[in-house]
Amino acid sequence: MALIVEKFGGSSVGSVERIRHVASIVAADRGRGDDVVVVLSAMSGETDRLLELAARIDARCCGRELDMLLATGEQASAALLAMALAAEGVAAVSLTGAQARILTDAAWNRARITGIEAGAIRRHLDAGKTVIVAGFQGVDGGGNITTLGRGGSDTSAVAVAAALGAQECRIYSDVDGVYTTDPRVVNKARRLDRITFEEMLEMASLGSKVLQIRSVELAGKYNVPLRVLSTFRPGPGTRITYEEKSLENPGIAGIAFQRDEAQLTVRGVPDKPGVAARLLGPVADDGIEVDMIVQNVGSRDGAADFTFTVHRRDYERARAILEKTVAALGAGRVRGDDSIVKVSLVGVGMRSHSGVAAKMFRALAGEGIDIRMISTSEIKISVVLEEKNMETAVRVLHDAFNLESGGSL
Amino acid sequence: MALIVEKFGGSSVGSVERIRHVASIVAADRGRGDDVVVVLSAMSGETDRLLELAARIDARCCGRELDMLLATGEQASAALLAMALAAEGVAAVSLTGAQARILTDAAWNRARITGIEAGAIRRHLDAGKTVIVAGFQGVDGGGNITTLGRGGSDTSAVAVAAALGAQECRIYSDVDGVYTTDPRVVNKARRLDRITFEEMLEMASLGSKVLQIRSVELAGKYNVPLRVLSTFRPGPGTRITYEEKSLENPGIAGIAFQRDEAQLTVRGVPDKPGVAARLLGPVADDGIEVDMIVQNVGSRDGAADFTFTVHRRDYERARAILEKTVAALGAGRVRGDDSIVKVSLVGVGMRSHSGVAAKMFRALAGEGIDIRMISTSEIKISVVLEEKNMETAVRVLHDAFNLESGGSL
Repeated sequence: MALIVEKFGGSSVGSVERIRHVASIVAADRGRGDDVVVVLSAMSGETDRLLELAARIDARCCGRELDMLLATGEQASAALLAMALAAEGVAAVSLTGAQARILTDAAWNRARITGIEAGAIRRHLDAGKTVIVAGFQGVDGGGNITTLGRGGSDTSAVAVAAALGAQECRIYSDVDGVYTTDPRVVNKARRLDRITFEEMLEMASLGSKVLQIRSVELAGKYNVPLRVLSTFRPGPGTRITYEEKSLENPGIAGIAFQRDEAQLTVRGVPDKPGVAARLLGPVADDGIEVDMIVQNVGSRDGAADFTFTVHRRDYERARAILEKTVAALGAGRVRGDDSIVKVSLVGVGMRSHSGVAAKMFRALAGEGIDIRMISTSEIKISVVLEEKNMETAVRVLHDAFNLESGGSL
Repeated sequence: MALIVEKFGGSSVGSVERIRHVASIVAADRGRGDDVVVVLSAMSGETDRLLELAARIDARCCGRELDMLLATGEQASAALLAMALAAEGVAAVSLTGAQARILTDAAWNRARITGIEAGAIRRHLDAGKTVIVAGFQGVDGGGNITTLGRGGSDTSAVAVAAALGAQECRIYSDVDGVYTTDPRVVNKARRLDRITFEEMLEMASLGSKVLQIRSVELAGKYNVPLRVLSTFRPGPGTRITYEEKSLENPGIAGIAFQRDEAQLTVRGVPDKPGVAARLLGPVADDGIEVDMIVQNVGSRDGAADFTFTVHRRDYERARAILEKTVAALGAGRVRGDDSIVKVSLVGVGMRSHSGVAAKMFRALAGEGIDIRMISTSEIKISVVLEEKNMETAVRVLHDAFNLESGGSL
């Protein structure tokens, strides 16, 4: 008899009918003899409704009381699922984050889980109950209700699975797994049966919104076996493994991409220590997230070219800050482009195959696609391209690496 | 510096604007230097919304999980009020029933408060905070969330006031106090500045829906000074006192009435021990609430007439049950009337003034109003009348006892 943790997102419990459907999934797993702990999000729309109420009271609001308010969303959905399970004859009990003893720090709205006293959940499991835990929330040392921030329910699920030593943590959503790339761009995109943990990290951070990156990190830290699958379409989903090398994906796991990027370049930066920090510091201080950063030696007199990318919505703001910094430094000229995209090849296999980059660049060149920037990590190669080339690039790479039929280098 | 407990009902916090208005009331009291603990109901409509969700999952639902669900309503309104207070510059903290350590038994949906660990609230007061407690809810010995049943927020408020030794417990609603009778029936009805606790009990149980009777009983038990007042119309409201005799109301406090009554009479009941129980037992077993019960000796051979009243919606059901019982007993005939009302004169003064009943009957007779039944207690005289006579009866009694200008016997 295994212990399974199952997490269902907001759209999976978005209506009474869907809550009943989730109950039928849980009841079936329970019927197979497994112990089940369910972690739930709030019904879709509920968190936004509560946030709007709060914003109408105080637009800048705020800390402890916002957590107190938002936590009701998951508490309600958890109670409703417990009722639906009871109606199916499955003994169930719902728990708030505090009742489940999910302990956090007191960083309101974005608390970190510091520990879980597993006995609180286990006591109910031992009594033969299916346990429903309100996701996204916990309790701090002072007994105050905290929330983990958006997407925190994934983190709750992984943490609960780790604390209980669960055999698997299943993340149910409206997508049925991790694909080699977005099927809306490449219709031959293939669902992966498995993906390594590190590949998943790169895919997630690059915009494949299947799992919150924070929960993937946590799963990696505690070696929690994850599976991503669909609430609405039965199937095995995608298993996230911890093997160094996946037999199934010898080379490339998939292609992630990020639309809505913008690029800012400072030409002729004096090549002195600390310059990069002085250029980026004011941008970061303004709360703008910087994605890629590339610096290479420029053509003239040892001056460098310094480039970074930001989300397109932050482009004008970042550019204005940068112009000011550059003027103060008395060096360089700012260039920008807010119609670029990023395409990334991800796969543990490329660690040992130096030819991947060359093959990637050749495939893009074959379509006459100009590469603006390149950045690499151990298991990822990212290129910045003109926006108009994005879909062609993804398709040609999907073909070049044979991802439709399993991937090869 | 006094400590005041203030309870606001659902319609008082029914919208963001109203929550802001409540915050302004609390802030003003706080500004006068008083410590304030606020007990809140859910925003009006919210409990019904949650109940409907639950009913759609399982119409018979149910126990622990329903409490878990319903408790979110008060938690949310408490958090929103804390935000609104913060926006007014008043440091506030909201607490769930569990956080406020409102301890109850485990009788789901209608739990009884068994104790309050006042330190949990007092700690925040000592830190200079205004404390908002989610009403209607508590926590049982196993850490499960419980609710006190509809109207339980009044009970929460009184219990918190008792535990903290508050100077006053103010119950805010959309009525501005207790009136000598319903102003919609007698436009000269007068708001009472004070009413005794026992009078309030009779007025509440007789249908003046200002306060939940359970909370009045609790207030009496712990001598908690209560005040009933309006959220929307500033004013002193009505203070509920524990003096044996009120100077202001030397005789009659007011006139309560109950429409929608129905009467059932069994004629010729054998006058033997246990007969009343055998007649009423099956009715009560069916969950029908019986109001007045009157028995008097009948005209022939020692047989008695036995009469009781029920709510009109239960009339047909009660009658069918009674017919069966009477047939089984082999004695008596059932008569019924579902167009009667009850009118009650309430006042501590009548204890020492035997003439009240006579004056009451004379006043009714003067209008040609037939009295069907009479029932009395120490501080109340109730009469059952034909429905058509109700408003006339209330008006003539209001005049006869001079209630418009202070009441006299």
